Amino acid sequence: MMRARVAYSGAIHEAYPCGELLRLADGRIVREEDVVWLAPIEVGTIFALGLNYAEHAKELQFSKQEEPLVFLKGPGTVLGHRGVTRRPAGVTFMHYECELAVVIGRTARNVRRAQAMEHVAGYTIANDYAIRDYLENYYRPNLRVKNRDGSTVLGPWFVEAADIPDVANLQLRTFVNGTLHQRGNTRDLVTDVPTLIEYLSGFMTLSPGDVILTGTPEGVINVDAGDQVVCEIDGLGRLVNDIASDAVFGRV
Amino acid sequence: MMRARVAYSGAIHEAYPCGELLRLADGRIVREEDVVWLAPIEVGTIFALGLNYAEHAKELQFSKQEEPLVFLKGPGTVLGHRGVTRRPAGVTFMHYECELAVVIGRTARNVRRAQAMEHVAGYTIANDYAIRDYLENYYRPNLRVKNRDGSTVLGPWFVEAADIPDVANLQLRTFVNGTLHQRGNTRDLVTDVPTLIEYLSGFMTLSPGDVILTGTPEGVINVDAGDQVVCEIDGLGRLVNDIASDAVFGRV
Repeated sequence: MMRARVAYSGAIHEAYPCGELLRLADGRIVREEDVVWLAPIEVGTIFALGLNYAEHAKELQFSKQEEPLVFLKGPGTVLGHRGVTRRPAGVTFMHYECELAVVIGRTARNVRRAQAMEHVAGYTIANDYAIRDYLENYYRPNLRVKNRDGSTVLGPWFVEAADIPDVANLQLRTFVNGTLHQRGNTRDLVTDVPTLIEYLSGFMTLSPGDVILTGTPEGVINVDAGDQVVCEIDGLGRLVNDIASDAVFGRV
Repeated sequence: MMRARVAYSGAIHEAYPCGELLRLADGRIVREEDVVWLAPIEVGTIFALGLNYAEHAKELQFSKQEEPLVFLKGPGTVLGHRGVTRRPAGVTFMHYECELAVVIGRTARNVRRAQAMEHVAGYTIANDYAIRDYLENYYRPNLRVKNRDGSTVLGPWFVEAADIPDVANLQLRTFVNGTLHQRGNTRDLVTDVPTLIEYLSGFMTLSPGDVILTGTPEGVINVDAGDQVVCEIDGLGRLVNDIASDAVFGRV
């Protein structure tokens, strides 16, 4: 079972795939281009993993971590499928990061690895943008790297856990303007999904709606205003996102 | 105007001081001890400042920052007045941190310092607990330091900005079991409130309900299970919080 959350005709609806169209929860059939896609779930705490694929850590010239590197992203960073993310003026490295996003479905506290997957509701795709220019700062990652508006693109679908038989063997692919640039497989996660849930729930409570962005594989390149970035994960669909210049936005 | 959010008789109410009692929005007068105090506002993104008082940075043996050190706290960390925060088993340093908390009232993006205060709705007190044992980690601050359940105590009151004529001259005091241990004044903030709003809104949008915890002055000591911690700020009241052992809580 996969579902989206879309805005259409004055309200927010749950929506399901229906061939090339979308079926809203009230039965109406609508075209994809007539809706605004929102993040497929209402998110609680957003956890994000740094350096959770060994080859990507090598690519960024980081050494091996001693424990999972987890940081938070704020609710203001969230954007849905087909949203537009701004590229700040004057920066050198804006990197996409295709990631498997794990959605918690049942409260977890002090959960052991063997039971951890019982707390997962399902999955979606995340494109967890980073502005690398600002990474090095005492409080890493500096919010300017990872907490910008539109830097957490989620969707298009929320897919129930039961529909993904082996979460430890999913191909990830990222295309920029149609060219494949990033490729990975969740079997290469340094810390796998159940271990992440054991780790986090060992010192805090995970709640329904909390999301864990599990990190990105190697193959990140800089993207520019005008680029279209597509992140794809087996069984989860294709998350489309466009990059625009920050200059078009004003002061509030 | 100051107000609280309390749970009483099956529902959540806005509440106002009424001598030693509380007046609910529906007119009922209740005793403080008959309600459960919640955080006085429904929080959006929680920003927290590290090392924003020079004397406190010195106390922790950190050198001067180059830009504001800001990190996020998750919504699951929030606790109201008279809540109980757990002290993890086996740690050496659990520090309270009395802080002025600034509540955003109007959306802010690319706001200049001179206009920044127009975006502030008001203030409350924060006790922003830290488990110092886990501070040093590549992704600082490690979530084990700052993202535990009950580690962001807020309240008791939300006080409107108009009632605090000079936010840059407020005394802060923290008492442990009745003894004064921490003392500071917001005039000693390394980065002051309007500059923080200019800084953050320069690269992301601040939204109503977002909260900025402005950092803590010197005078942090370790607290143990059984201790009562009271944080006091001029004009904002006294935030009471008890420490319990983590051992009494089970597995979910």
